Amino acid sequence: MNVTKPSIPRGTRDFSQDIMKKRNFIFDTLKSVFQLYGYQQIETPAMENLSTLLGKYGDEGDKLLFRILNSGDSINPESIKKAIKPFIELVDKFIGAPEPDKYSIDEDKKIIRNIIIKETSEKGLRYDLTVPFARYVVQHRNDITFPFKRYQIQPVWRADNPQNGRYREFYQCDVDVVGSNSLLNEIELIQIIDEAFNKLGVNAVIKLNNRKILSGIAEIIGEPDKIIDITVAIDKLDKIGLDKVKEELRQKGIGEESIVKLQPLFDLRGANDEKLAKLKEWISASEIGLKGIEELEKVFDYLKNIEISIKIDLDLTLARGLNYYTGAIFEVKALDVEIGSICGGGRYDNLTGVFGLPDVSGVGISFGADRIYDVLNQLEAFPTDTAQSTKILFINFGAKEELYCLPLVQKLRKAGFKAELFPGNAKMNKQMNYANTRKIPFVAIIGEDEMQQKLISLKNMQSGEQLKVTFEELVRVLNEES
Amino acid sequence: MNVTKPSIPRGTRDFSQDIMKKRNFIFDTLKSVFQLYGYQQIETPAMENLSTLLGKYGDEGDKLLFRILNSGDSINPESIKKAIKPFIELVDKFIGAPEPDKYSIDEDKKIIRNIIIKETSEKGLRYDLTVPFARYVVQHRNDITFPFKRYQIQPVWRADNPQNGRYREFYQCDVDVVGSNSLLNEIELIQIIDEAFNKLGVNAVIKLNNRKILSGIAEIIGEPDKIIDITVAIDKLDKIGLDKVKEELRQKGIGEESIVKLQPLFDLRGANDEKLAKLKEWISASEIGLKGIEELEKVFDYLKNIEISIKIDLDLTLARGLNYYTGAIFEVKALDVEIGSICGGGRYDNLTGVFGLPDVSGVGISFGADRIYDVLNQLEAFPTDTAQSTKILFINFGAKEELYCLPLVQKLRKAGFKAELFPGNAKMNKQMNYANTRKIPFVAIIGEDEMQQKLISLKNMQSGEQLKVTFEELVRVLNEES
Repeated sequence: MNVTKPSIPRGTRDFSQDIMKKRNFIFDTLKSVFQLYGYQQIETPAMENLSTLLGKYGDEGDKLLFRILNSGDSINPESIKKAIKPFIELVDKFIGAPEPDKYSIDEDKKIIRNIIIKETSEKGLRYDLTVPFARYVVQHRNDITFPFKRYQIQPVWRADNPQNGRYREFYQCDVDVVGSNSLLNEIELIQIIDEAFNKLGVNAVIKLNNRKILSGIAEIIGEPDKIIDITVAIDKLDKIGLDKVKEELRQKGIGEESIVKLQPLFDLRGANDEKLAKLKEWISASEIGLKGIEELEKVFDYLKNIEISIKIDLDLTLARGLNYYTGAIFEVKALDVEIGSICGGGRYDNLTGVFGLPDVSGVGISFGADRIYDVLNQLEAFPTDTAQSTKILFINFGAKEELYCLPLVQKLRKAGFKAELFPGNAKMNKQMNYANTRKIPFVAIIGEDEMQQKLISLKNMQSGEQLKVTFEELVRVLNEES
Repeated sequence: MNVTKPSIPRGTRDFSQDIMKKRNFIFDTLKSVFQLYGYQQIETPAMENLSTLLGKYGDEGDKLLFRILNSGDSINPESIKKAIKPFIELVDKFIGAPEPDKYSIDEDKKIIRNIIIKETSEKGLRYDLTVPFARYVVQHRNDITFPFKRYQIQPVWRADNPQNGRYREFYQCDVDVVGSNSLLNEIELIQIIDEAFNKLGVNAVIKLNNRKILSGIAEIIGEPDKIIDITVAIDKLDKIGLDKVKEELRQKGIGEESIVKLQPLFDLRGANDEKLAKLKEWISASEIGLKGIEELEKVFDYLKNIEISIKIDLDLTLARGLNYYTGAIFEVKALDVEIGSICGGGRYDNLTGVFGLPDVSGVGISFGADRIYDVLNQLEAFPTDTAQSTKILFINFGAKEELYCLPLVQKLRKAGFKAELFPGNAKMNKQMNYANTRKIPFVAIIGEDEMQQKLISLKNMQSGEQLKVTFEELVRVLNEES
């Protein structure tokens, strides 16, 4: 038998038990908050038809899709033969070319890839949860009660170049409501962000913007058609600075006069209310701009009526590069750790149009579990009490003792305590070491003496203290500790 | 923009919120039991290197692997060119063949597939959780404390022909302990099965066998080398009957004399203890057979010391077709529903050998979440109290009312009640219909009158009863109901 050296694909990860406990803390916290607000879980398949995925993420995104080879029976050699003919011709051309070295192989690379893709794959791994959700809503629209509040926590796959903190398989945690225009949804999502990061123990700030205001600004400076170029450029303000943003605007063909007109945007300072007031004055000639301001005013207004502890910053440079947002745009940043956004999203008015269901408005956010993990890990802020861990280990001294211990362990489990009996009569220090590395807080030692006395030697692994106790006393100690 | 008719790949499924609640009940129950016994969760990537997967599931299994196309940059056209040459030659051969119709395309089909597989894919989706777990154990052996008790609940993918109840993506729920020979582990797994199906509300029976006894029987009848053929044949006894089993044995080259000697196996009746006693007499000349009997005796013996409500049947015809079991073999059948096994597993002595770590013994079982779902669904035995669902909906009469309701809803959530405020001022019957289809048990109606009186009209959606209550009374009602 061949021996395979074990490894996993680049950019993927194994999650050990200790990491899983921490990850579960994040997922469980998010789930509990989503449910508290009435969101319901759905799941979609890992594989989607390529027709569902292609063209939804731009050319760059298409390239990053993981494609799945059709299984044996569905590969049709006749159609491959037909499709491969141009390739054969290319090979001939290459061989017969006057200067074969100069002949570019880029073209046949592309052709080969197209042949393979067209003829051998019809399915791909999902790239995010948004497009599958849109597909889901349209496909099941007759069974869905709108407004539809759903959450979805599943892995996604991207054939990205794996590097620091970027993975080829990672989880997204999405929460969306579709089929409702009400701004209450935006407010609710802010409440959810507030509550989630409170429960997770992460200090954060919500950056808030509105795409309609960006449209208004584009109108006001006389470049209504350049809204995407403008938002893409100003989204980079934090990263590259004002001068380079202006340079990019120039490169995109935005006139000097328009760039000058944009200055009030960069000068905007003060509290959210002040900013909104100044903005209102500046872009008062734009109907859509005023609509955006009105929306933000309502959100800020409502939030005054409820308790929110997270800071909310109106940030007009926030565009998130995503072209499908039509109203609110959200982004959450951790305050105590230097890291990208840990949550983000916005309002979209035509998510499902591409699948044949126009005019369904929705708003949603996505929590970045991996980044939240990194934040909590760096701050050492994961709860030490892990409800998922074993509370007590019974040492195993051999056949007679294990038979004696078995019903005691069972009684503890019936009472809800996570308990283990070491499987087999290993050396004492191996068993104690097991308890130590597993961070099991109590060890029960039952040998000849203890069996006769009907007592249990109970060792507290943290203090090192050891006592002889009855079973009832043992239960009391475990209860006090949990 | 192209409109794509939404659909998902054959053999995959969307899980709606109602199905997810039921599935989560199964997963959460299993997890809670696994944790109670000290098992810890791990996760492995959906994609594994093909070198990890290939050759582990037999030729049939290799064909059922979903392979992932290498992403753009890692497709090397030069090597494809080279590999594709025999195909070009084949095309020529085909065109030049004297009777092209008779020329079999099976061979080029195979060649094309090999080219594609060899040159374009290095990764595959995991086929089960056992092989990735073995790979995990070897890869991380220096970080693992043995005995290692782990559980893993993740989807697996098989390019099987989708048909009734067979899917191309489905979840497995595996629980294993590796690095311990102790029979306590077998006993613990029986306890876990008992407790899990108790908590799930499924009446079931555990069928128990031991591979060593099967080896002993093969020895006794004089066909020690035919153990696999014998077990494969007798595994089918329930399905095809005794005569056909004998026919299959003959076809596999097992002599008539040996088949006659096998008769005591088919005649074995009575309680487990009686069966074991008869067996012991029959195969007393086989050392390995007696070892198997001894193991089963110890398991039955220990079980007398603990409370187990599930029935356990010694079933020597149970072989589960899997060649890697070396000791105990488990299978669980539902009693009230006609369906295949809902859980199964066994002891294996060389799971990790293929990855370079020999002599690691383990024992584990796998729960079939989809079949358990089908059993509970057919029996209508899912709990009606769904802790995951919204308890109360606040009707929305417009801007003033929603502003008034917002802090009330927040107070309820703070108290842990899952609560919603309908997003937007839709027609009353639309909002009531939303509560109905969502099965929300209470609706709070707050209009002009209620705001003035500082009361809430509370409608019980099941009884239809409607009362005016204070906020404190509302909390009391919700508490009584949960």
